[in-house]
Amino acid sequence: MTRFKLVLEYDGAGFVGWQRQATGVGVQQAVEEAVYAFSGETPTVVAAGRTDSGVHALGQVAHVDIEKTVPTGRVRDALNHFLRPRGVAVVGAEAVSDDFHARFSATERGYLYRILNRRAPPALDRGRVWWVPMALDADAMQAGARHLVGRHDFTSFRASECQADSPVKTLDHLAVARDGDEIHITARALSFLHNQMRIIAGTLQFVGQGKFTPEDVARALNARARSAAGPTAPPEGLYLTHVAYDGT
Amino acid sequence: MTRFKLVLEYDGAGFVGWQRQATGVGVQQAVEEAVYAFSGETPTVVAAGRTDSGVHALGQVAHVDIEKTVPTGRVRDALNHFLRPRGVAVVGAEAVSDDFHARFSATERGYLYRILNRRAPPALDRGRVWWVPMALDADAMQAGARHLVGRHDFTSFRASECQADSPVKTLDHLAVARDGDEIHITARALSFLHNQMRIIAGTLQFVGQGKFTPEDVARALNARARSAAGPTAPPEGLYLTHVAYDGT
Repeated sequence: MTRFKLVLEYDGAGFVGWQRQATGVGVQQAVEEAVYAFSGETPTVVAAGRTDSGVHALGQVAHVDIEKTVPTGRVRDALNHFLRPRGVAVVGAEAVSDDFHARFSATERGYLYRILNRRAPPALDRGRVWWVPMALDADAMQAGARHLVGRHDFTSFRASECQADSPVKTLDHLAVARDGDEIHITARALSFLHNQMRIIAGTLQFVGQGKFTPEDVARALNARARSAAGPTAPPEGLYLTHVAYDGT
Repeated sequence: MTRFKLVLEYDGAGFVGWQRQATGVGVQQAVEEAVYAFSGETPTVVAAGRTDSGVHALGQVAHVDIEKTVPTGRVRDALNHFLRPRGVAVVGAEAVSDDFHARFSATERGYLYRILNRRAPPALDRGRVWWVPMALDADAMQAGARHLVGRHDFTSFRASECQADSPVKTLDHLAVARDGDEIHITARALSFLHNQMRIIAGTLQFVGQGKFTPEDVARALNARARSAAGPTAPPEGLYLTHVAYDGT
């Protein structure tokens, strides 16, 4: 048995999220079916984080145990052969030690939220960005974002159905920058609460529009109530960009 | 009557190219139908260049004459209302003088060709890049590209069905640069021959693979025969990035 670490890119649009749902196919299922197609085995594929329906990944990490003896490069190429029509790509595959765990060994997760901020809707990036046609002040959004960096009780910034034991998380990095017609929100933390990035994006968009002042973000945080923060931004602007592990 | 200059972004995947064909819908037709939907008028929409089937645009320019009196911002938003489901966006619209002609007034066209150069196929950029899994040497490609810059007889680099009177064109800029997993080929000229960019991309890809030396690009050019150059690269990697006019 060899444990493989897989780095996955996927288009969230075709999936109900990482996990299978009654309503449709999960990315996990697509990868497990590809593992079965080339190995005849049915192991569980475990991801660093369970992305929601419609959320994309540039660098999701998963692990899977395979009994069949296969060279590492062949694992990547064989999985891609079966995954290619499904909007999932195995960007990297490497053999790792048996104690590597995609979820529990992770030391950092990174996200990017893309807002297309122009009057015209996206043509080439449909389903890849959140389209916000009204002018947004990226500097004000950045000023608001500063209040969220650090260790806080993020009760205001998690979905009501969030199952994490504690709402206390440490946000190591959160920044807002304009890049032409786009506004990019980047974040890094050991882990995130359910919908945390999307509620942060929705709240910062309120700041960009002038519905909130930057200081209102601190007030929303301190209120410790979901209703105090802004709306949950749509999933299509969100990307899991990377997962880091000790020594990587 | 007011003449409007439109800047268009589109996803080439859904169209048979700029012009209508027996086999399907052209971008021109989609724009003309949107003009009709908001104005009741049926003017011809004239583009700077007729992109081929599957070729994308970030900054195609077109002009159209509208009798109805409408504010400029309303033209853009109204067209977008009707074009949004079709993968076309009017990024800008402005009133111009009656002697402005999208095709004949243009002083420069710019193209980008995107190659995804990694073992894994594209997941998020399916249909947006040419996937080349074998390693490419971007420096060699750049060395080959240098031979094409300037005024040349580009007979080797045009489609057999090209209808231009002369194969002599001046390529003002052609450069190859690696950006992570991608290789970008950028070009600027007053005008291009039919398939010129795609044959350049296919030929430079031969250089990147080592099938051609950089000097073979000069030999292909001097042969003045289509068969001397490399293959025509697929349309999905090609973007018309901009069209320039005097004073813009």
